[in-house]
Amino acid sequence: MITQEELHQQALDYHQGDRPGKLVVSSHKQLATKEDLSLAYSPGVAAPCLEIAKNPELVNNYTIKNNLVAVITDGSAVLGLGNIGPLASKPVMEGKAVLFKHFADVDVFDIEVDTQDVEEFIQTVKNIAPTFGGINLEDISAPRCFEIEKRLIAELDIPVFHDDQHGTAIIIAAGLLNSIEIQGKSIETAKLVCLGAGSAGIATLNLLCELGLKKENILLVDREGVISTDLQNVSEVKAQYAVKTNKKTLADAMQDADIFIGVAAANLVSQDMVKSMADNPIVFALSNPDPEISPADANAVRDDLIMATGRSDYPNQVNNVLGFPFIFRGALDAKASEINIEMKIAAVHALRDLAKLEVPKDVLIAYNAESMSFGKEYIIPKPFDKRLIDIVPKAVYDAAIASGVSRL
Amino acid sequence: MITQEELHQQALDYHQGDRPGKLVVSSHKQLATKEDLSLAYSPGVAAPCLEIAKNPELVNNYTIKNNLVAVITDGSAVLGLGNIGPLASKPVMEGKAVLFKHFADVDVFDIEVDTQDVEEFIQTVKNIAPTFGGINLEDISAPRCFEIEKRLIAELDIPVFHDDQHGTAIIIAAGLLNSIEIQGKSIETAKLVCLGAGSAGIATLNLLCELGLKKENILLVDREGVISTDLQNVSEVKAQYAVKTNKKTLADAMQDADIFIGVAAANLVSQDMVKSMADNPIVFALSNPDPEISPADANAVRDDLIMATGRSDYPNQVNNVLGFPFIFRGALDAKASEINIEMKIAAVHALRDLAKLEVPKDVLIAYNAESMSFGKEYIIPKPFDKRLIDIVPKAVYDAAIASGVSRL
Repeated sequence: MITQEELHQQALDYHQGDRPGKLVVSSHKQLATKEDLSLAYSPGVAAPCLEIAKNPELVNNYTIKNNLVAVITDGSAVLGLGNIGPLASKPVMEGKAVLFKHFADVDVFDIEVDTQDVEEFIQTVKNIAPTFGGINLEDISAPRCFEIEKRLIAELDIPVFHDDQHGTAIIIAAGLLNSIEIQGKSIETAKLVCLGAGSAGIATLNLLCELGLKKENILLVDREGVISTDLQNVSEVKAQYAVKTNKKTLADAMQDADIFIGVAAANLVSQDMVKSMADNPIVFALSNPDPEISPADANAVRDDLIMATGRSDYPNQVNNVLGFPFIFRGALDAKASEINIEMKIAAVHALRDLAKLEVPKDVLIAYNAESMSFGKEYIIPKPFDKRLIDIVPKAVYDAAIASGVSRL
Repeated sequence: MITQEELHQQALDYHQGDRPGKLVVSSHKQLATKEDLSLAYSPGVAAPCLEIAKNPELVNNYTIKNNLVAVITDGSAVLGLGNIGPLASKPVMEGKAVLFKHFADVDVFDIEVDTQDVEEFIQTVKNIAPTFGGINLEDISAPRCFEIEKRLIAELDIPVFHDDQHGTAIIIAAGLLNSIEIQGKSIETAKLVCLGAGSAGIATLNLLCELGLKKENILLVDREGVISTDLQNVSEVKAQYAVKTNKKTLADAMQDADIFIGVAAANLVSQDMVKSMADNPIVFALSNPDPEISPADANAVRDDLIMATGRSDYPNQVNNVLGFPFIFRGALDAKASEINIEMKIAAVHALRDLAKLEVPKDVLIAYNAESMSFGKEYIIPKPFDKRLIDIVPKAVYDAAIASGVSRL
């Protein structure tokens, strides 16, 4: 294990290197001769311009638009670092671009926006939208992110997807469906506690309800405690999960819960809380880098547990990279006008089902594992599983076609 | 020679190909292992974010910002095609990105903006500016472009450069200084006619006046004829070149002129007009793709002429690619806060002087020429001259340092 300080310095060295940053923009067309340049630029370039002016759909034939996603942030909620602003968020956005390309061959321009005014942010994204085939909103604080995403989805005709919401929700849902099956529970009757009412928490509850979870079985907990109908001044997005209950604290909520989902902060869950959960509980402690409770602490008090975290050094890593590259790949390939609930559920099911298939040798090698098979310590696929690119985009693509949002 | 139709189809095929468009965004950092990804993205990426949050200047060490230029348009004045809008302009902007990379290793995101409202365009560019180390405004119609550029220069701390103005002006000025020398004239006394009062025309006159041209020796001509102080309702930018004169038409203006610069439209200049010019005249007929008068027609009536066009199939091609890649390279390397007049003049002089040096063999080979030397048919360097990248950026860089706009 390397220390935090060593990782910090390694990461700085990596980002600086011979050439600062991580991205490079180049041409994938031949540029060897003057003749090539006269096609790529003046005078030849007038030809695709004229064709697109006549038929705007042809922009997808003659430019990279339909393979180009904007990763856009205002820097208001970056990783676990908070509101560090647009400049300091740039390494994360370039990193996201790297993952999009690496996993799904999607080209990305990262765009850091210098306003945290909701209307101005929306207008800016709308104004630059002709450039792109899709918009991945990133690291925008709640509740602003809800309004921003809703408006952009309504006002643009390309997919707009706030990954901190839906990407997270999709991976959680895939892992949770498998965990519920392994633990012999049912999503229709399971009692769930969600700690954290930000973008990830709310989007996860929304998606799980689409998948059969009952609102009356949910307890949403934030810094103020359990969100009950008795509370005043609860925001609209949280209020939809307010229930009539006497429970006040996280400890109250955890008693007899089947499922805990933590998308909040480190070390908020005690061993006693885990002890108080129902038989065969499911604990997704997803705060990064340090979970709400460590797997060691949780496993020490329960041996009937399924445990997932956001970390790569424990089993069951809930990692957005399982989602966004493949979801956008499918949406772009389908020339979808949006990423609708059918496409999100298709991604959930594809990830859920992939975890049940036999794990290929190259995955075992990549993870230095002797064996890996569906069960308590393998509920979701691994990011380096090369079958993801074959399976998830196709599922999303098919759902786009079936639900009528493809423009093919 | 290929026909127009063949070029059109070749260009469409080139832009479509196996993969639409011309750009690709990839990583230039190693991404072979899980460990690489943990440096490029979570958790390692938090390190550069934290450092930049503490010291914003470090964004240049840990991201591509300082090598990344936005090529931004609203699609209002694209090539000679007019106001074809943002979507149809995208092939040109991608082409510009290709040239930036090819000639000067500058990374470019092309951004097509969906508003032609001046204030909204300015606000949009300002909002996305943290992403970039420089802004290349492109194909924005006059007079809107003047206000847009002026405001963005004032309100941003990175170089903002409207290439249709200054790029064009710089290349014209370099070629013109050499032409004036070859023809035995003086810029202080030369009489100049400029046909076209758009972005290129006005910027060229501004720059030539900085280089010694006298306003009283200029006749600016637009669609309405000679811009004289007698005219009413002349826009502010044109009014600065209004002179007291009885001349009304282009033909009137051309009589006894030493220099003609055409940045207007095809075939507006007659053989009689060229005949009426002073001894040893200079004709820059730069309208693309067809010049104001063809070299064949002009040379047929004058044998004491220097003639330049925008075309690669005649001698003396005035081509912006001689400028923008190298000017931005120098400005970015100097971490300049703007591209000021000193840097522009440094580029002019560098290009002027390079044309006087012996032409290397590889340039002769690239242009399939037996010889090429400073004179009436070689007044400016060729785009494929590999010395450009050594000479022009350094001149611009040195001028940035000397004029106090470098932040090194």
